[in-house]
Amino acid sequence: MEEKLPTFESVFSIDCLIFGFEAGELKILLIERNEEPFKGWYALPGYIVKQDESLDDAADRILYELTGLRDLQMKQFHTFGEVNRHPQGRVITVGYYALIRINGQKELRPISQYARQAVWHPVNSLPKLAFDHTEIFKNGFSKIRRRLNHQPIAFDLLPEKFTLTQLQGLYEAILNKKLDKRNFRKKMLSYGFLKELVEKQKGVSYRAAKLYKFDRRKYAKIFQNELTAE
Amino acid sequence: MEEKLPTFESVFSIDCLIFGFEAGELKILLIERNEEPFKGWYALPGYIVKQDESLDDAADRILYELTGLRDLQMKQFHTFGEVNRHPQGRVITVGYYALIRINGQKELRPISQYARQAVWHPVNSLPKLAFDHTEIFKNGFSKIRRRLNHQPIAFDLLPEKFTLTQLQGLYEAILNKKLDKRNFRKKMLSYGFLKELVEKQKGVSYRAAKLYKFDRRKYAKIFQNELTAE
Repeated sequence: MEEKLPTFESVFSIDCLIFGFEAGELKILLIERNEEPFKGWYALPGYIVKQDESLDDAADRILYELTGLRDLQMKQFHTFGEVNRHPQGRVITVGYYALIRINGQKELRPISQYARQAVWHPVNSLPKLAFDHTEIFKNGFSKIRRRLNHQPIAFDLLPEKFTLTQLQGLYEAILNKKLDKRNFRKKMLSYGFLKELVEKQKGVSYRAAKLYKFDRRKYAKIFQNELTAE
Repeated sequence: MEEKLPTFESVFSIDCLIFGFEAGELKILLIERNEEPFKGWYALPGYIVKQDESLDDAADRILYELTGLRDLQMKQFHTFGEVNRHPQGRVITVGYYALIRINGQKELRPISQYARQAVWHPVNSLPKLAFDHTEIFKNGFSKIRRRLNHQPIAFDLLPEKFTLTQLQGLYEAILNKKLDKRNFRKKMLSYGFLKELVEKQKGVSYRAAKLYKFDRRKYAKIFQNELTAE
């Protein structure tokens, strides 16, 4: 079967690593492929860059065509160029990522025939992925874990107003380990970039928890000057 | 002249951003190009990736052929894929960087005919560069400035044993501004990753300054746990 596939001499592609957080679980967006090779397999949303589009434009177009999601402000995280990474020839792929709120209103709806469906999948139980996509996932996930230490990326995954329990759940999901509640809260509040709201959690039968907002401006101020001795 | 040049349909290249620090100045490694287009111009060391080599291998080979330097453990920082960035066709280039000690023994000696010479050039007075290399430089330099806040990259530019004056000079060169001496020292020493040596500065007529070493282990320990609330 693979013998009949066209081969490429040198091709650029994009692969997208889209993280979302839902019901205490960190998830990643996958497509079920509709075409050979790897028909029926899960893969990261990814495809070939056109001659007349920039990498950033290609990333937006490809994600939209394969999942129905758009305007995510994805960023590059790494470019993968091992010689034999693709069965059809030399394909160098640029990895893009985004962290988003999973929102019931954002329906996943592939436009391209290349994807049979797009689904959110928990990162803790990923199926085997096509090509070298497991490796791409691991590379991106470890970078995002490291960025969590010095960039406010985690807040992109939470609703605008959140409880400290939700924030801790997100950190635990990304770091894949339990954190001590008291230490976590103390440390998080000590930074000064969480803004306590007057409004409290609604629709809960137990004692309503405090709600917080993330203060992006304060965050930037604190972390900008970290080591610059100002 | 340019009309006669071959054009590419889709090609991958590598461009290298190599920073060094010498006599209080931050420098970057440039080549003088020997070929059209841009003959006689300065450019970042860069060339086309071969079909049978990985991106990392290509980066090492290309830097070596154009400058004589090798084994620098370069890392990717960004991939540039604007449609019209190269006059000969669609060339997507992967930017690699390294920060190294400028060492008198490491002679710059291009092997490839493509470079007439390789030179260290102060970042504060860069000449106009070929292609979009000024943009690539700016992108990489701003990333490195940001990384300076949370990664020990600055220490790769200093000798193994250094004075606090040297360290401050390096920070000032990278950030391109004067820093307050007292605050800088206080802050740097407060982190706990500078190890004071018994040995003092030698060969100076004034009072010999203390020498320090960078404690990579301690650094990792401190910054790993920054926000992870452990």
